[in-house]
Amino acid sequence: MRKSITVKTSQREELIDITNLVNSVVQESGIQNGLVSLYAQGATAAIMIQENWDASVRTDVINCLQKLIPRGVWLHDRQDGNGDSHLKSGLVGPSETIPLIDGKVGLSTWQNLFLCEFDGPRTERKIVCTIIEDTSSSCQIGR
Amino acid sequence: MRKSITVKTSQREELIDITNLVNSVVQESGIQNGLVSLYAQGATAAIMIQENWDASVRTDVINCLQKLIPRGVWLHDRQDGNGDSHLKSGLVGPSETIPLIDGKVGLSTWQNLFLCEFDGPRTERKIVCTIIEDTSSSCQIGR
Amino acid sequence: MRKSITVKTSQREELIDITNLVNSVVQESGIQNGLVSLYAQGATAAIMIQENWDASVRTDVINCLQKLIPRGVWLHDRQDGNGDSHLKSGLVGPSETIPLIDGKVGLSTWQNLFLCEFDGPRTERKIVCTIIEDTSSSCQIGR
Repeated sequence: MRKSITVKTSQREELIDITNLVNSVVQESGIQNGLVSLYAQGATAAIMIQENWDASVRTDVINCLQKLIPRGVWLHDRQDGNGDSHLKSGLVGPSETIPLIDGKVGLSTWQNLFLCEFDGPRTERKIVCTIIEDTSSSCQIGR
Repeated sequence: MRKSITVKTSQREELIDITNLVNSVVQESGIQNGLVSLYAQGATAAIMIQENWDASVRTDVINCLQKLIPRGVWLHDRQDGNGDSHLKSGLVGPSETIPLIDGKVGLSTWQNLFLCEFDGPRTERKIVCTIIEDTSSSCQIGR
Repeated sequence: MRKSITVKTSQREELIDITNLVNSVVQESGIQNGLVSLYAQGATAAIMIQENWDASVRTDVINCLQKLIPRGVWLHDRQDGNGDSHLKSGLVGPSETIPLIDGKVGLSTWQNLFLCEFDGPRTERKIVCTIIEDTSSSCQIGR
């Protein structure tokens, strides 16, 4: 089962919590066990699993990546001015795969799912959610 | 088929080889071909595939990440003192997906599977292993 | 369905576009919907999804990683002289999972699939492509 979710971003760089949106897709699917694959379409976006207890971690992620990969010093900046955005997206990566356990995304207490925007604002960022059912008879063994 | 494995960690930051534990889950499943998905539950842990010929690479990973993401300088440190741990986990990422080939995890000779501990020691770190069988008739073609 | 693709690399560090090779495997499989899992075998290689509009981004990736993870300063260099290669591979990661949508790899316009070579040149780098079919009746819902 596959469904795309879209989010709007409002800053050049930010982390948007998509956990509830992904949970809705999972519920709609009715699938109980298997894998949830998330894929961010867009070469200046990414998916990161990160803590969401407070907003500080999200800000730290943006600040950390800005320090590691500064803006305006890359060859690609001569074309688009977003060389840093591509580098951040490639390093963080657009895909994450999470277990689906008894109808719920198998995150731990403090893990949430985030779209990373590295070249916003954008009116529409698209994340493809693919849910693959585990139909093996033993899928509940050893939880 | 899904099974969680748990490991105990003894340092704040370390890489624990979980290859043998994952191999045991694969053997127990009896599944021969498909995908093995690993997922580290915990917002200060991660999964890394890395060489294990000697311990030096594991130490290099810890030192490298400490240099790139220093301790004690993040907004989140005011809450928990582990801002660096979250950043490292987010960047390395909690999920890896490896092919299952003829009953064996499709690692190359020098690749092993590691849990990255970035905020230990912990009595229990949990990694969810999900094995999805490839039931297509052509799964052995073109190995 | 699984098939390995191989590429030859000609420099110590470079990004090789494997999108067309992966597309061929997908076409050969005849599978329309599901997941495409890519896995680079080799502890000094990785898979990165990155823009391919011009060559500048590929060069920026190599330069950025060389700056973040310099050569010759790691413990492992005493054994192999390729400590930086292992660190880069571990951080970028050998696996990416992309949705398969109506017979096509679900990349966006500017996303391409790259093998990252961090310790070449090599006569053969092997990438395992595993395609898992989504057989659920609702797989086309909500595209």
